[in-house]
Amino acid sequence: MQGLHLTADLAGCRAIELLTDSLALARRCREHTEAAGLRVVGEHWHRFPDLAPGQPGGMTGMLLLAESHVALHTWPELAGVTLDVYVCNYGEDNSAKARVLMTALVAMFGAQRVHEQALQRRRP
Amino acid sequence: MQGLHLTADLAGCRAIELLTDSLALARRCREHTEAAGLRVVGEHWHRFPDLAPGQPGGMTGMLLLAESHVALHTWPELAGVTLDVYVCNYGEDNSAKARVLMTALVAMFGAQRVHEQALQRRRP
Repeated sequence: MQGLHLTADLAGCRAIELLTDSLALARRCREHTEAAGLRVVGEHWHRFPDLAPGQPGGMTGMLLLAESHVALHTWPELAGVTLDVYVCNYGEDNSAKARVLMTALVAMFGAQRVHEQALQRRRP
Repeated sequence: MQGLHLTADLAGCRAIELLTDSLALARRCREHTEAAGLRVVGEHWHRFPDLAPGQPGGMTGMLLLAESHVALHTWPELAGVTLDVYVCNYGEDNSAKARVLMTALVAMFGAQRVHEQALQRRRP
């Protein structure tokens, strides 16, 4: 059960089209997750209603991993995204893979400002 | 985008049947989430393969919320669960609802030991 939980809150995202395009966002998240050596076992995405005509709403999405999960929430009206990458280290230490994936996701959005945090999860 | 992210890592869970019963677990998580005043917009659950005959594997599940997400991972062989409740406070402060929900989820599993943490998420 012990593991590493990384979060990143992004602002000033230059790849603004990704914040509302669920198909492209899901595909690229899967690609980055698999490239980091983590295994997707399920996913679910939700698009929020348009804020106004021509002003698309944000997305919420989650990838369930064999190693735990990835979660994303987008706020296109703020050019903002929040990211979670959580890996348990049951069987092997997946911390390096989690860091590689988070770096790739942050870069994908072209964020100008990033607030990153990390939690150690553990069996109490 | 600013919000509250609560985590809890549980051990010694007495409600051991919940750790492998996806239908009951999903139903009860939805009920607790809605009772806390949060809104489910999607969910996805995955059951891992049996560890051995008669020894069921764990579950991973996520509820997508209008306010962000809930995530659960169960380890029946360790009587352990990890929980995440993340609410953004866009429009209103949902922090109290998140705390109510986390308290209810921890109680539901009858955990004997709990390691709780909290992160403030924010626009950078």
